[in-house]
Amino acid sequence: MQASPPPPAWGEGHRPEGLTVTLGRDRPLALDCGIEMGPFTIAYQTYGRLNADRSNAILICHALTGDQFVADPHPITGKAGWWSFVVGPGRVLDTDRFFLICANVLGGCMGSTGPRETNPATDRPWALSFPVITIADMVRAQARLLDHLGIGQLFCVIGGSMGAMQALQWTVSHPDRVFAAVPVAGSYRHSAQNIAFHEVGRQAIMADPNWCGGDYLREGLVPHRGLAVARMAAHITYLSETALHRKFGRTLHNRAQVTYGFDADFQVESYLRHQGSTFVDRFDANSYLYITRAMDYFDLTVEHDGVLARAFRGTKTRFCVVSFTSDWLFPTSESRAVVHALNAVAANVSFVEIETDKGHDAFLLDEPEFHTTLIGFLEGAAEHRGLPRRRQS
Amino acid sequence: MQASPPPPAWGEGHRPEGLTVTLGRDRPLALDCGIEMGPFTIAYQTYGRLNADRSNAILICHALTGDQFVADPHPITGKAGWWSFVVGPGRVLDTDRFFLICANVLGGCMGSTGPRETNPATDRPWALSFPVITIADMVRAQARLLDHLGIGQLFCVIGGSMGAMQALQWTVSHPDRVFAAVPVAGSYRHSAQNIAFHEVGRQAIMADPNWCGGDYLREGLVPHRGLAVARMAAHITYLSETALHRKFGRTLHNRAQVTYGFDADFQVESYLRHQGSTFVDRFDANSYLYITRAMDYFDLTVEHDGVLARAFRGTKTRFCVVSFTSDWLFPTSESRAVVHALNAVAANVSFVEIETDKGHDAFLLDEPEFHTTLIGFLEGAAEHRGLPRRRQS
Repeated sequence: MQASPPPPAWGEGHRPEGLTVTLGRDRPLALDCGIEMGPFTIAYQTYGRLNADRSNAILICHALTGDQFVADPHPITGKAGWWSFVVGPGRVLDTDRFFLICANVLGGCMGSTGPRETNPATDRPWALSFPVITIADMVRAQARLLDHLGIGQLFCVIGGSMGAMQALQWTVSHPDRVFAAVPVAGSYRHSAQNIAFHEVGRQAIMADPNWCGGDYLREGLVPHRGLAVARMAAHITYLSETALHRKFGRTLHNRAQVTYGFDADFQVESYLRHQGSTFVDRFDANSYLYITRAMDYFDLTVEHDGVLARAFRGTKTRFCVVSFTSDWLFPTSESRAVVHALNAVAANVSFVEIETDKGHDAFLLDEPEFHTTLIGFLEGAAEHRGLPRRRQS
Repeated sequence: MQASPPPPAWGEGHRPEGLTVTLGRDRPLALDCGIEMGPFTIAYQTYGRLNADRSNAILICHALTGDQFVADPHPITGKAGWWSFVVGPGRVLDTDRFFLICANVLGGCMGSTGPRETNPATDRPWALSFPVITIADMVRAQARLLDHLGIGQLFCVIGGSMGAMQALQWTVSHPDRVFAAVPVAGSYRHSAQNIAFHEVGRQAIMADPNWCGGDYLREGLVPHRGLAVARMAAHITYLSETALHRKFGRTLHNRAQVTYGFDADFQVESYLRHQGSTFVDRFDANSYLYITRAMDYFDLTVEHDGVLARAFRGTKTRFCVVSFTSDWLFPTSESRAVVHALNAVAANVSFVEIETDKGHDAFLLDEPEFHTTLIGFLEGAAEHRGLPRRRQS
């Protein structure tokens, strides 16, 4: 293999257009809402190669509007994958050493079963007849995917934002299947303020007459205005005031002075409008409703009498909890609460708060200290797991 | 007078339903956008009595969605005036000593000329043909009202949020007409993040098909869904995360468990929806566009080569700048920048940062330390102005 250039960049079987598998035909997925779902499809992507003893798998969990195209061009936008500078040969998530998996979440709109897909029972889009799913349901579906791939235990589960919620849920739902976990810029439960912002987004979508009570696909419509407004509101929360000030300040957009009108006079307005309108091209409005709802419902303490530590009791997983100083959506205090709970059960946990002014989105950006943290943690965990050392570059 | 009970609570001429005056018939208002506006109507409210030498007038400037009904029941909602526990006999803004004036801003929707009112030239609602106004234009209109009332110099101009912008603009536009100024929870310019939130609100309104390009009044419609979404998004910014957590946390709304649906499962959702729907009953969507735009355009440095201190050069006004620790919409750093600029020109300035977890809305709430600060500052200023001392209670 090594002699035949060029080797496949991402290992055997890598397909930039992605993979799908339909699961649960015999054993449907028991969702938190009480509904049994099956069959269901999971669209996913892999990078690198699974080793002989299947011990080098890392599951990457994507955020609210993320997808499985971690390090491939996005099939709709053509943009580079959302973590492409983290994933690759010799990179932080080293495809020469690890087998990386990322699956579009249940309820998503990039190929996994969700409100946009066709309900086989009715031959129509699920739309609002799709059951309301939870973060635990997303993890259940991912576990089935791992079963399908023949992976018993993950070397690591990692994710930012909603990805962090999934990573934490993995350690609670399947403690024996997670050797290490890296929840980044996340929380153990969605805060009141975050629920409030999500509710604004949902109301914006539902206020769009094109939404048609959720049946827009059947009507051949797209609630693009409502979805764009939802994205704009959310996008502000992903940045910090400092970052917005540094990037845009009060700079005018292609003009020398204000127009005394409602055009996008300021660059920040033009930027936000662009964020809204491009989002509509790649995301499904109903998926946005379902996934925000799953985040709102997330609260690891609910089944443990409000005591977070109980959720982690007996855990053997090695944790690396990461937060960012300027993240006001998932502030450090939320990560610290996770760390305190883990400490209370004497878990193996590292905690790093990264100094940055880039806000919540920092986990998606080039943050050297963050990447150094990840490399260090993964190196230590790999050693404990008996995986080969990192190649010195 | 003292013998004839009961004395009019607010002094002679007080009318709970409010007053209006039409101005600028002979001399139109020269707006920043270059348009001359006249005649124009200002709806206002007064409390207390003007003294013989006309030296006890305080102008209260209202915030974005405020109005002139400072201490009277709101004519639409019936709720108590927005500053009713601050204004009254013996209160912080003591109607036994001061003559208080509050005018609905130009562009507003409670009786002053704005996009909802009829354009006399066309006999139709102004709608989007209303000129885009600025904070300085609002102040110009208020100055005309003072001319009409025969008030040369204000003892004080006071306001929170957008009211603080007006108060500061007063000291710059009419330095000789302002003895004292109290900008609360404000700034000398609207930040990129705040412009961004306003843009979300405007886009939500304009996305509502009922908005009809601004002509909804002519069509007999109300863009209530878009306006409600705008209000919901804005309302989150008025509170602090701590306040939202304390008030609502993740408490469910009239139910024992989540419904796995898109109803308002959480109290914070129900609260926000209520804020949105009640706002629509009392506020005009186009006014919301115009007033948010005026705030976005506000930047006292623009005409002073970006140097704020130059705006205040030579000022004789006594300033009391107030901010609140948990206000993330107009954080203390913004007020501090004003104070630094005032210090740079050796102005007379007090600065108080009030410790509270109530966020931006703290200026509207019962904050004893805030009120004590106001009393102290007004007492000192009154003494310097030669006004009688506060009655000891």
